Amino acid sequence: MHIHGYTFGQVASGAVSADELGRLCDSVLFGDDDRAALRRAGELLDDQIDALLDVWYGFVGSQPHLLKQFSTPAGAPIGDYLDKVRGRFGQWVRDTCAADYGDDWLAYQHEIGRRHARAAKNTTDGADSTAYVPMRDLIALIVPITVTVRPFLEGRATADDDVDAMMGAWLKAVVLSVALWSQPYVADGQW
Amino acid sequence: MHIHGYTFGQVASGAVSADELGRLCDSVLFGDDDRAALRRAGELLDDQIDALLDVWYGFVGSQPHLLKQFSTPAGAPIGDYLDKVRGRFGQWVRDTCAADYGDDWLAYQHEIGRRHARAAKNTTDGADSTAYVPMRDLIALIVPITVTVRPFLEGRATADDDVDAMMGAWLKAVVLSVALWSQPYVADGQW
Repeated sequence: MHIHGYTFGQVASGAVSADELGRLCDSVLFGDDDRAALRRAGELLDDQIDALLDVWYGFVGSQPHLLKQFSTPAGAPIGDYLDKVRGRFGQWVRDTCAADYGDDWLAYQHEIGRRHARAAKNTTDGADSTAYVPMRDLIALIVPITVTVRPFLEGRATADDDVDAMMGAWLKAVVLSVALWSQPYVADGQW
Repeated sequence: MHIHGYTFGQVASGAVSADELGRLCDSVLFGDDDRAALRRAGELLDDQIDALLDVWYGFVGSQPHLLKQFSTPAGAPIGDYLDKVRGRFGQWVRDTCAADYGDDWLAYQHEIGRRHARAAKNTTDGADSTAYVPMRDLIALIVPITVTVRPFLEGRATADDDVDAMMGAWLKAVVLSVALWSQPYVADGQW
């Protein structure tokens, strides 16, 4: 399936080194157990991603200050922009659960950050919308993007599955993503 | 007890409005139940904060890229700096559990952010250390600062307590703190 603007594997790398990523993984306590738990979470979520996106889009749609980031300057939500982001957002869930933390993955995280910041918001989808997603909201959304996943995992988990371990790994993966995405926002070399 | 450099209630407010804080609380799904859960968590943690700080300092001490932020340019950990920050870090736990989200609380969060960033790192304690805590580590530390609290809550919880609810509220409170602390790092009005 073609996903508009999904350029994983086509982005130049180099903004963040593998060593820096390794230290960041240490900071979020990410280990091999988490990688395995994410793989299993990906299996459980795979055919539920549309329903998960419905929950996330419902939340964003209910919060005017968040919906604004998908709206025109006059305040009208842009359906085409919402749809195109949705396709990539779903793929991000899959990619996050399957991540190998290699150069392509790392380079694409940097690109995702740019697409939230002034550097490149709106450009992928030709949207007439706000100039950036505020850094504070990008950080804050760690919570809803994390906690809303639990019922989807619980609904499919078998007796052998450890949902708490999957949730712990998912939290680490989301925080890691946001830490990487923050780079284009930060001033004076403080990233 | 006097806490060196603890200036809660003495910091000029205004960097973030109460309206902005309210929207940020919406973004992290923070509600009255969370406030109550944090209050109870504060009761359970109150006499365990030294032990919790031992865990956090043990983690930071085990990670060279984190310990560096408390060390001289030559790489020697600064005991006096570690000690002075520790006093305020413990009080931050108490203040976070007891927060009323009023002007003094909000102004002090801004000050805490400045003390991690180039704006004011080292100045409170006269430390000869790194110029800033990297934004990526401040975000990444959401994970260890959150997950390490669970055993301290579980060890004291009674049958009437809901540790999962307290953990959920603590995650929201930590993410909210980091979102507020990020302001002095962000370029081009993107906060």
